[in-house]
Amino acid sequence: MNDLRIDGGRLWDGLSRMGEIGATPAGGVNRQALTDGDRAARDLFISWCREAGCSVRIDASGNIFARRAGRRGVAPAVAAGSHLDSQPAAGRFDGALGVLAALEVVRTLNDHGVVTERPLEVVSWTNEEGCRFAPSMMGSGVFTGRFDAARMDATADTEGRTFGAELERIGFRGDDLVSVTELDSWFELHIEQGPVLEREGTAIGVVTGANGLRWFDLVVTGHDAHAGPTPMAERRDALLGAARIVAAVNRIGLAHLPGASATVGSLAVHPNSRNTIPGRVAFTVDLRHQDETRQAAMKDALETEAASICAADNLELDLREIANQPPLRFDPGCVAAVRGAAAAQGLSWREMVSGAGHDACHLAARLPTAMIFIPCEGGVSHSEQENATREDCIAGANVLLHAVLKRAGVHAGC
Amino acid sequence: MNDLRIDGGRLWDGLSRMGEIGATPAGGVNRQALTDGDRAARDLFISWCREAGCSVRIDASGNIFARRAGRRGVAPAVAAGSHLDSQPAAGRFDGALGVLAALEVVRTLNDHGVVTERPLEVVSWTNEEGCRFAPSMMGSGVFTGRFDAARMDATADTEGRTFGAELERIGFRGDDLVSVTELDSWFELHIEQGPVLEREGTAIGVVTGANGLRWFDLVVTGHDAHAGPTPMAERRDALLGAARIVAAVNRIGLAHLPGASATVGSLAVHPNSRNTIPGRVAFTVDLRHQDETRQAAMKDALETEAASICAADNLELDLREIANQPPLRFDPGCVAAVRGAAAAQGLSWREMVSGAGHDACHLAARLPTAMIFIPCEGGVSHSEQENATREDCIAGANVLLHAVLKRAGVHAGC
Repeated sequence: MNDLRIDGGRLWDGLSRMGEIGATPAGGVNRQALTDGDRAARDLFISWCREAGCSVRIDASGNIFARRAGRRGVAPAVAAGSHLDSQPAAGRFDGALGVLAALEVVRTLNDHGVVTERPLEVVSWTNEEGCRFAPSMMGSGVFTGRFDAARMDATADTEGRTFGAELERIGFRGDDLVSVTELDSWFELHIEQGPVLEREGTAIGVVTGANGLRWFDLVVTGHDAHAGPTPMAERRDALLGAARIVAAVNRIGLAHLPGASATVGSLAVHPNSRNTIPGRVAFTVDLRHQDETRQAAMKDALETEAASICAADNLELDLREIANQPPLRFDPGCVAAVRGAAAAQGLSWREMVSGAGHDACHLAARLPTAMIFIPCEGGVSHSEQENATREDCIAGANVLLHAVLKRAGVHAGC
Repeated sequence: MNDLRIDGGRLWDGLSRMGEIGATPAGGVNRQALTDGDRAARDLFISWCREAGCSVRIDASGNIFARRAGRRGVAPAVAAGSHLDSQPAAGRFDGALGVLAALEVVRTLNDHGVVTERPLEVVSWTNEEGCRFAPSMMGSGVFTGRFDAARMDATADTEGRTFGAELERIGFRGDDLVSVTELDSWFELHIEQGPVLEREGTAIGVVTGANGLRWFDLVVTGHDAHAGPTPMAERRDALLGAARIVAAVNRIGLAHLPGASATVGSLAVHPNSRNTIPGRVAFTVDLRHQDETRQAAMKDALETEAASICAADNLELDLREIANQPPLRFDPGCVAAVRGAAAAQGLSWREMVSGAGHDACHLAARLPTAMIFIPCEGGVSHSEQENATREDCIAGANVLLHAVLKRAGVHAGC
């Protein structure tokens, strides 16, 4: 049983085929949540799950659950997976690797006629990225009771289309009632999305927890005016104020190292005309830290600096926090199962904290949880340059296989 | 003759009636170039010119010329006017004031039987605003030979309708050949579109020239990466670099006062996702100055600061100049005629340089030219909130009357 290995060729081929959905000319993917590309990826995944003999359920958030029976039919299932949606300019590994590796675990057990004590559940969560519909990790957030389903349904994208309407448009408003109590634990394989493993030449990241994440929406309002005749001293330039805040956000991140990150990822200018002083700028701030107290200090610094910048430039500021996930620690038992699987296979490993949010962060609040990281090229993700090696993907999937087997238990007779 | 004054009630009534064409619910006007509203405004203007005894000509760009004969029939005409087209959300004074004030000059001379030595030409130029068909100041640009007529005809609006086709649709593709050599000089009355006159309580701006204008397109390129796991020290954040340049552009404007303005009006972020470090930001820079040498220094400062910011942040910079109009000095004689008319009427006046572009900027390249500014409320234009007082409009028209009379000469016998 310890020698059991997944079919690396099949896993890699699945990643390639999934990567053709929403493929971009530059070699990446654009498969944002609830687009036609997301629908096509979901359809392909479900067809593969059914081929693998799984019974598929879809809940009202569009989360997909594919169950493989265990000997103890009614026992809670050991669950594994990730998400199939992507950023607008993304790679083929972020999310899809975790989903397809979990499916590969089921396929491998099928190939070898292995029956687990507990059932297995392969899960793909809806809208993990949050780039089209904020907040991110929406499907797992509703599943774990962190988010209100009705409020998520009402969330609109920049064109005013709501999450609920788009979920129905792509045909994934399911009516299966799936409860957290049906799951025993959660394992998620993911690319690191950072440079540490690759730089160290370490194969496996044993993820012991995740950074806290706080998201803010800011709107700076001044006054539109003609760029020619309006004297410099009389301007109320919203973009100038926003630019000062962008620089301040970077300073705040640097001031709270180690373990901190601070980013302005999205910014929109109104009226956005070459010879008009911008009267309104809307933008986002993303603050992360391993330590909750330090993260609160970052939030205070943001509020103080943004307010003083806008006061100095005679601008109005609207600052709202839209998401706040505290730092968290994963389950020691599940983490030990991951560590043990990596060690047993002779893979190099290190413990680390996830800088990114993952569905596992929601699930950890309700279920014993662990994550497995593998290196990605240059630490790059959320980019069409995102890449990971075949060898590392296979190693990660084998660690997932044995961590899941450890938790699910294998019938002695098999 | 020095006591001659225009009929203020008639001028104000004309502005009100013209303002009914393309009137918006919010009290502004939407009379974009070559729309049905523009046609209706042209028809009304021409009917008034004919009632005033003028002979009307229309050239192939749809520019309208209404001539009042002088004693020296073949002499070049003293010309005055502006434009009747508007921004999509505009007021009733931008352009229309200059056209109707020039018509009021003719009507006033008719009322008092005044015959000028030189003929007068009231002119309304086509598509000054450029918001539907770029570039702006199109009709005067073709008339003065700066723009190519065929290229302007081929310019399309956002619905793909061309300038030439729309000009024919509204019936204003004229066949009159009007040459610059038929004109002696150009006078244009316009609202300031800035706050200076109103703030000072000055009635008349004696415009001595126009700011130089230099436009730049910049693209800053870094590397998209995940906002969570990417260490602050390893980022190539294009928005951070762009934000530093936005602040630098403002510093450059302030450092080159007086007579300088520096604006970033348009900025677009890629991929523009809240949890992705932006890899590319494209934005514009608008640099204006009264002095060509100082403006060149602003351009040098922009290039130097942008390059050093991008070098420090490990970003690539692409900076291109896309427009360069040198500062203009209007004709000293025409400017003196405006100044003398304001002083003779006991009006408060100050010399100033136009920050915005006007048809006069094209005409100044070929003819002795001057402009007259009057205050507008809050310095606001290109907005439905644009407003000017009856008193200021009348004062400006009386200055135009006497500046034109000074240049045209009055027959001693009258």
